[in-house]
Amino acid sequence: MASFNLMSRSTSMRWRLPLVCLLWEVAMIVLFGVFVRFNPEADAAGWMEEKYKKNITSDAENDFYFRYPSFQDVHVMIFVGFGFLMTFLQRYGFGAVGFNFLLAAFGIQWAILMQGWFHTFENGKILIGVESLIGADFCVGSVCIAFGALLGKVSPVQVLIMTLFQVTLFSVNEYILLDLLHVKDAGGSMTIHTFGAYFGLTVTAILYRPNLDSTKDKQSSSYYSDLFSMIGTLFLWMYWPSFNSAISNHGDAQHRAAINTYCSLAACVLTTVAFSSVLEKKGKLNMVHIQNATLAGGVAVGTAAEMMLTPYGSLIVGFICGIVSTVGFVFFTPFLESKLRIQDTCGIHNLHAMPGLIGGIVGAVTAAAATEGVYGTEGLILAFDFTGAYATRTPSVQGGFQAAGIAVSLGMALAGGAIVGGILKLPFFGDPPDENCFDDDVYWEVVEEGENQSSLYSMQNSNGKSVTNF
Amino acid sequence: MASFNLMSRSTSMRWRLPLVCLLWEVAMIVLFGVFVRFNPEADAAGWMEEKYKKNITSDAENDFYFRYPSFQDVHVMIFVGFGFLMTFLQRYGFGAVGFNFLLAAFGIQWAILMQGWFHTFENGKILIGVESLIGADFCVGSVCIAFGALLGKVSPVQVLIMTLFQVTLFSVNEYILLDLLHVKDAGGSMTIHTFGAYFGLTVTAILYRPNLDSTKDKQSSSYYSDLFSMIGTLFLWMYWPSFNSAISNHGDAQHRAAINTYCSLAACVLTTVAFSSVLEKKGKLNMVHIQNATLAGGVAVGTAAEMMLTPYGSLIVGFICGIVSTVGFVFFTPFLESKLRIQDTCGIHNLHAMPGLIGGIVGAVTAAAATEGVYGTEGLILAFDFTGAYATRTPSVQGGFQAAGIAVSLGMALAGGAIVGGILKLPFFGDPPDENCFDDDVYWEVVEEGENQSSLYSMQNSNGKSVTNF
Amino acid sequence: MASFNLMSRSTSMRWRLPLVCLLWEVAMIVLFGVFVRFNPEADAAGWMEEKYKKNITSDAENDFYFRYPSFQDVHVMIFVGFGFLMTFLQRYGFGAVGFNFLLAAFGIQWAILMQGWFHTFENGKILIGVESLIGADFCVGSVCIAFGALLGKVSPVQVLIMTLFQVTLFSVNEYILLDLLHVKDAGGSMTIHTFGAYFGLTVTAILYRPNLDSTKDKQSSSYYSDLFSMIGTLFLWMYWPSFNSAISNHGDAQHRAAINTYCSLAACVLTTVAFSSVLEKKGKLNMVHIQNATLAGGVAVGTAAEMMLTPYGSLIVGFICGIVSTVGFVFFTPFLESKLRIQDTCGIHNLHAMPGLIGGIVGAVTAAAATEGVYGTEGLILAFDFTGAYATRTPSVQGGFQAAGIAVSLGMALAGGAIVGGILKLPFFGDPPDENCFDDDVYWEVVEEGENQSSLYSMQNSNGKSVTNF
Repeated sequence: MASFNLMSRSTSMRWRLPLVCLLWEVAMIVLFGVFVRFNPEADAAGWMEEKYKKNITSDAENDFYFRYPSFQDVHVMIFVGFGFLMTFLQRYGFGAVGFNFLLAAFGIQWAILMQGWFHTFENGKILIGVESLIGADFCVGSVCIAFGALLGKVSPVQVLIMTLFQVTLFSVNEYILLDLLHVKDAGGSMTIHTFGAYFGLTVTAILYRPNLDSTKDKQSSSYYSDLFSMIGTLFLWMYWPSFNSAISNHGDAQHRAAINTYCSLAACVLTTVAFSSVLEKKGKLNMVHIQNATLAGGVAVGTAAEMMLTPYGSLIVGFICGIVSTVGFVFFTPFLESKLRIQDTCGIHNLHAMPGLIGGIVGAVTAAAATEGVYGTEGLILAFDFTGAYATRTPSVQGGFQAAGIAVSLGMALAGGAIVGGILKLPFFGDPPDENCFDDDVYWEVVEEGENQSSLYSMQNSNGKSVTNF
Repeated sequence: MASFNLMSRSTSMRWRLPLVCLLWEVAMIVLFGVFVRFNPEADAAGWMEEKYKKNITSDAENDFYFRYPSFQDVHVMIFVGFGFLMTFLQRYGFGAVGFNFLLAAFGIQWAILMQGWFHTFENGKILIGVESLIGADFCVGSVCIAFGALLGKVSPVQVLIMTLFQVTLFSVNEYILLDLLHVKDAGGSMTIHTFGAYFGLTVTAILYRPNLDSTKDKQSSSYYSDLFSMIGTLFLWMYWPSFNSAISNHGDAQHRAAINTYCSLAACVLTTVAFSSVLEKKGKLNMVHIQNATLAGGVAVGTAAEMMLTPYGSLIVGFICGIVSTVGFVFFTPFLESKLRIQDTCGIHNLHAMPGLIGGIVGAVTAAAATEGVYGTEGLILAFDFTGAYATRTPSVQGGFQAAGIAVSLGMALAGGAIVGGILKLPFFGDPPDENCFDDDVYWEVVEEGENQSSLYSMQNSNGKSVTNF
Repeated sequence: MASFNLMSRSTSMRWRLPLVCLLWEVAMIVLFGVFVRFNPEADAAGWMEEKYKKNITSDAENDFYFRYPSFQDVHVMIFVGFGFLMTFLQRYGFGAVGFNFLLAAFGIQWAILMQGWFHTFENGKILIGVESLIGADFCVGSVCIAFGALLGKVSPVQVLIMTLFQVTLFSVNEYILLDLLHVKDAGGSMTIHTFGAYFGLTVTAILYRPNLDSTKDKQSSSYYSDLFSMIGTLFLWMYWPSFNSAISNHGDAQHRAAINTYCSLAACVLTTVAFSSVLEKKGKLNMVHIQNATLAGGVAVGTAAEMMLTPYGSLIVGFICGIVSTVGFVFFTPFLESKLRIQDTCGIHNLHAMPGLIGGIVGAVTAAAATEGVYGTEGLILAFDFTGAYATRTPSVQGGFQAAGIAVSLGMALAGGAIVGGILKLPFFGDPPDENCFDDDVYWEVVEEGENQSSLYSMQNSNGKSVTNF
């Protein structure tokens, strides 16, 4: 406790965190007030007009019913999936779930604005609907990924600042890819995973902590923390078909994206188990691999799932990614830490960075290989939106642009991560000293087990009293 | 163990609990047999007729597809959401999840009957469909809320008796509001939260236990119990948009209600974190606030979410409620306990009572402010159901009735809670003595960690033997 | 650790498990490549054609939107539901969740092939869509059930071998029932539960371990493991209405199946609590019963839920099954173990076998009792598919065939289980010695609490080094 008191000035969040939260939330309210309105499908007068205008006879045509179930699955992935996945550390469960909750709650608001300005800005207003909510969750997903590399080493203020910048850069990168390069990336292999992971890895490299060995104990898991983490893993794994199909075209595209993702994920589990057993001592399985590498198959079909990747193509992608990701945990993570000074707490390089790159490549190849024979004449135009200015683009050209999208995402991530890492290095954000990393006690009221436990009420009472001393 | 034997006669549930469960379930079967039938959309012959009669060409028009995904989300909120939210106590996890399970399973049956008699009673039969299931879950939600105030201090028999009465009173109150006052309350700020919370607070006031200080240890959380509780928090938070939109009109209203709730909840997280940090020792965050106050934003747009509240209006409501709720945990809960003798285990006053009242007021104001310009002429009629006897009602009059709905809910809750509290005070329901409150050991077989553990099989074996001694 | 070293040769999975996983996954890829294609509703060209051909004007008619939300609920039941339900053992949580994950991920791939060959094989190709995914999850559900009897006593290689055979036999049995006998079993009382449970019980009988008493300690639960298990219970319980309605006819049948299941499950909770209290020492509740017997009501309406069972009929079925299942845990499980040498770790006889049989009988009776008065003339034909070769079948004849389906499922399970049990008894699959049963330490890297914990990184580092010694 003595050492804690010595550093308590620097890590105390009392004024910094509330100030950031309140000011930013007020800014959100003002910006939403100026800019954000319902799109016609969520608007009382608008939907009525829409139905007249487009001769719609059934409310079932409202986009809400095509996307809301998928949205809710994505929502669970962001908050429970990523949140609990990161609870594997024995003493950082509050920070994992809690800071992920905080960053995502702020991030979705800022993402609605940023993505809205780029995509649904009409007559000075951002018009939002269920697809905006999915888009915001997606954007925040990339921040959750980056946070995985930093887990346990940053203050909540740093997390919020990173979220502000990363959401901004994400939206710019997404605009370049989807609008300027006219790239397809419905499940975000490039925009979410590649971008998010390399962004986070760059930030953590810049925030390198040379003396982190002293916390080795806290960097391991406990039996129950591993089980909590599996809650996150499984919800991510189960709902990934919804993630990759959530914003695809209505009908066959959503249907196909779900099937492809389901297949890829299934194959990925088998190769993860195989390589975990081969590479671990005595052939035992390692929970770290099961928690993470089993998900790589979902990442790697993020771009191509809505295309005619075919079920066996998806199995092949999942097969490869389970291997790549597991091998990454065993060999690359230690290498990154010791040689490149990249301290990647959750191993996002293995789960998001490499599979994200693979996903971009798979998408480029699948797009380049598209033919009218497979998609039908109309189907091909619909699948790649070869209309308007892009009416003359061919699949092989599309493949080239897809590949360019990977490079752009990677470049934006490295450059953006370097800048934001530099900002986060500034000394007044209250990050914990090395010896207090990976420990909830720094930012959370933690009741010590075994010691004389004070009750909920008495804690509150003591607060009630201390208030007079403000 | 000695003290336990002394009071074992009084808390043993052996005959009381089975008797109540079996008799009531038999009553449910008889009443369902006499009254409950499928509505036409769930009936083999009925849906066929409906399609002919209304010229419906697609099964997609069946209400099932408009509401079932939302129903499932609501279902998760009631059983996992409320159940796990209450597992924060270090030694009352079984009671939290288990008794919540029991009360909800009984309550939904009784609610289908009560709500059916008031709302879908035709030719002597209650006709049920997916909306009835949502309604029943909603009704039971108000009991889960009230149970939160009593958590750890009542026997399962008391819980069931409270459920019986509260569901009955809920249905009467709901009938007064929705049918007599023609009030809109799709997400239940008034009918579910205000009613449920003040009902529960009144009951707990009447069941006041002066010597509860002796259990202070057990009233605190443990590290893992706080993580279990976050499972409940997050599922409530994530699915709240489904809760507030589940029974709104098809199309734009459901769409809008989900968006508004999403916004309000996001804002609420930021202000909760801000105030938790400001008010806690050394600026640390308190898990009690994160688990609870982050949800207040969902409660407070329960009435207005389906109206044209707008995204920024929702942010403002969430902003305020995060503050009100967190401040409530720090100042009001200790005050309520010490001055008003209200022992509110889960702090439902902060999460449901105050935000519920705010939600009622927000609803009244939003209704009163409705204009044809915003909703469209038809849209306004549709949104507030200004048809039939209510064809001439204006938005401002509607606002007045909405306000009256708050008062009626509050009155019903206080009066009903007083009566039911008096009933529960009767000495033969097996409630635990003060020193055994908040302890699963009273009503559950608990394997003691560390001591010589008997196996599943041996427990069952010993039961098998002891049966002969009945 | 000494005893561990002695037997480490036999239980090491290093080469056996990876070999099985990789070879089988390669086989899946080849077979998918040869056989599996998208059905028209998931195919870019196919859906476009389908819309022209059938004059479909809305994408909402794509089967994806009728079934995907239910599919996702079923998916959660298989992976989180069954996975976490089995975490009740104090030291077998990794195995419960992890091996369930592994078997299900392999099983769904093999099931898509097996069920595809029997059901959607056209012109040499298996055409898959969302219903195939549900079917695969259902098939794997029966393996999860069987695994419940073997939990803690088998190696992952044995689990995979059992999955291969059981999925095969499941598909044959399903084909006999659904196609040859033309039996209705949408929720799988016969095909999933009766078959899966008796298969698993037969296998465990053949793998009888006489000295399992030595692991009594490990066969009990701990406080937190019981809470983890409740996560599984509740997701199974909440989503069971989706399970029983997932592949029913569009419209009223799906609607009705959900309502009936909801009712049956609610009643089941009440009688489970009643009998748990009556039969336990001092009237306390036993978590084993709450975790399991509360689900029996869902099993027992698996066949009849989509029929006109009526809500009160469902309540009666749930009422009975809560009793049967709880009494089974108290009396039958010890009897099965001591007299019939059936060591049923999770008590699947009580949760799946008996309720499955009851479900088959309820289905037969409900089918036999069907009338045109209740279903309507067209409705009756639609509900039981009395078309083509079955145009002249009457409800009472249908009831007879339903009954025959129970007998076939039972026979297939017992015969298949005996053969597969014999195969699994072969000595080279690495099953644990009796004293190491129910212990994750055999197949998983487990960090010991309290002892000097090595960090995530150091574990990986040491692997990195040891690799050179391969």
